[in-house]
This record gives sequence, C-alpha cells and structure tokens, in this order.
Amino acid sequence: MESPSKRNKVKRVPQRGHYDRETIYQVLDAGFVGHVGFTIDQQPFVIPMAYGREQDRIFLHGATSSRLITSLKTGIPVCMTVTHLDGIVLSRSAFHHSMNYRSAVVFGQAREVPPEEKEEALFIISEQILKGRWEASRKPNPKELKATSVLQFSVEEASAKIRSGPPKDDKEDYELPIWAGVLPIHRQMLPPLPDPDLMPGLTPGPEIKALFE
Amino acid sequence: MESPSKRNKVKRVPQRGHYDRETIYQVLDAGFVGHVGFTIDQQPFVIPMAYGREQDRIFLHGATSSRLITSLKTGIPVCMTVTHLDGIVLSRSAFHHSMNYRSAVVFGQAREVPPEEKEEALFIISEQILKGRWEASRKPNPKELKATSVLQFSVEEASAKIRSGPPKDDKEDYELPIWAGVLPIHRQMLPPLPDPDLMPGLTPGPEIKALFE
Repeated sequence: MESPSKRNKVKRVPQRGHYDRETIYQVLDAGFVGHVGFTIDQQPFVIPMAYGREQDRIFLHGATSSRLITSLKTGIPVCMTVTHLDGIVLSRSAFHHSMNYRSAVVFGQAREVPPEEKEEALFIISEQILKGRWEASRKPNPKELKATSVLQFSVEEASAKIRSGPPKDDKEDYELPIWAGVLPIHRQMLPPLPDPDLMPGLTPGPEIKALFE
Repeated sequence: MESPSKRNKVKRVPQRGHYDRETIYQVLDAGFVGHVGFTIDQQPFVIPMAYGREQDRIFLHGATSSRLITSLKTGIPVCMTVTHLDGIVLSRSAFHHSMNYRSAVVFGQAREVPPEEKEEALFIISEQILKGRWEASRKPNPKELKATSVLQFSVEEASAKIRSGPPKDDKEDYELPIWAGVLPIHRQMLPPLPDPDLMPGLTPGPEIKALFE
C-alpha cells in the first residue's frame, strides 16, 4: 500500500499526496460518512455510507436486500473516499482559489462478512460513529442481524491528499489591494437533543459526555 | 428529471427520497464539495471536487492535463454526490442508529465547456464557493484560462435523500433505560484568517463580511 501505483497516485499537486498508512488512517478515522463508488453496467454510483475500519479492512453495512449491498457483495471493484473540508482558501487571483481539506481515497473489492464475524464488524462501524455507544445500546437480535448485511474490503491501494495553510498567489499578485486568507471551516457537534419520547430521568451516558469534555 | 427511473430511484427507506428540482437544488446549492464518480477500465474513482450549478447544468473544473479531466471530457457517465451531515442519531437499539443528512445524487455525461463559455462557467463555480468573490478577485488571464478545463454535464436524473428528526426505535425498546436522541452537527465558518503575507491595511471585503452577518 505504501508506494503509489497508476490507480492511486496523486497526479495533481503531487506534494499534497500521502501514501503512508498513518496519514490515510487518520483521515479515515476522523470521518462519519464515506462516499462509496461502484459501477453497474458502466454506470458509476456514489453513495454516502457509514463505515468502520480495523487494520486495513473497511466495513460497510446495509439492508440485505438493497441494490448497493447485492451489487457490492459480488466482489466488484469499489472506491471509497472520505473528505474533511477545513477551509475556503481565498487568493488574490480567481485562479488560485482553493480549499483546505484532508481526503483519503481507498480501493478494494468488497465481499460479504461471514455470519460469525458480522456482530464484530457492526461493532467496529458503531465505534466509528460514537465510541462506547455499542456497549450502551440494546444489541442486535437474530432478526436484525439477518436483515443487515456487512461487507468488508481490504485496502488494496490508497492515497490521502491534504492541503492546509494560506493561499499561494503569483508573485506579482501580492501587491494587489485584494484581501486574501482562509475562511476556516469547523465541524461542530452541538449539545445532545433528547428524543421527545425519552423516558423521564434519563441523561446522556459517558460515551456522549466524552465528546464535550 | 421528476419521476424516478431505475437509476435514481431511492430504494431503501423510500419515504426519504425526493425527486423534485427544488429539493435537489437546495442540497446542491448548500455544498462546497461534490464527490464525483467515474469509471475507467471497470475501476470506479471517487474524487472530491468543487462545483457550480446553473439551472440543470453542473460545472466542474480542473487542470487541463489531469487524468480526471481528460477522462471525463470523453463523455463517460458521471455521478456526483453532495452530502451534508446534520447529526448522529442515537437510538436505544444498536440496529436503529442512523444519521441525519441531506444528500443529492446526480447523473449525467460530462463534456468540455467551449472556450467562449469558460469564463462564465468558472464564475459560476466561484459563486458557489463564495458569492461575490469573483468580482473581488483578479480575473483569470489567457494563460490561466488555457491551463484550466471546465466540464459541464446536464443533470439527466437525480434524487435527494433526507433524514431529519429523532431516532425511531422498535415500540418495546422505548421502555429501555437508554438515553436516545440526536447529536446535531453544524458546519461552522470561523472568522477569516488573513494571509501572513497580506499587504498592510487590507480588511475582508463585503463578500466575506456577509457570511458573518
């Protein structure tokens, strides 16, 4: 996974490309939603999905009967991309406007997780969404497990692309009287909103409180 | 575009599906980054890109020599997905955990924008990023215009999928002593960070101040 191939090589602005596991996993682990791409009859589809990661395996889940799941589990090639937008980069020239971001693109071939590993895989997806929540929740029953398919794919190739910092303008443009800089973007988690049907007296558990410490 | 086909029909939780232009355009217009999917030699790729929209046309841009641009401009099918994550939905059961989100998936076939329409298309992409910024910036020169390709595709089919509101648990689970609710997620724009090389005395223009009013 560590040296770029034709498939995963970052071609534009190659100094923004990263191929080491640590960088790629940091981007993946900070996300909630992956954009999963696959092709059916020459038609590409890109679907937002929750995911989980353990070592170099990515887990996805969905309803057993869904088109997504039935297509992916045949082992067709899949590409999942996770992007964090960190800011809008305002340069003096229209041409050099950009974004600060961290993205990871991973390639593999999905297959279905066997029944005996399904619950562990769902746990991994749950931990990606909120660490500790699985333990706090009512666990899946056999009917629910049957209605859910879990797919995994090993990351065959991957790359991360990261841009940060101020704009880069052409030398002569620095003398133009145009404000330039970055509009930072931050994903903010707001205080928990209780379910209107919540049983009286319940308060958010430690896995939720930990987000606001 | 208004009645679902096999390609764009929302199959899972169909009550979350929307096919009207207004809903789809609202989701597109609120975004900064689209995940663009295309297929080369059976291999799907999903690349995060800035975009713009005018009527039912989507514009993308990139370096003229990039793989992305040279592949897409041959007119291969493209799928672009824009997703806004609005919250983590914590149900009592592990099974019913979900996310609140708004996503739009659009399908088309890209072609290159002819030279005489290029600047207008770049303006539309720029306006999507920050309305009014094009006017404030140094406009592209002929060399920059040449180095940039702009693609457009008409939205042949599209769908939006939206989930909002509290968790939905199985009836009997409402009596479990498990906190349930939503962790709202908000994309926050922080105050502008000036370029360290900014000419002294410049302040953010009205197009930037408008974001914080």
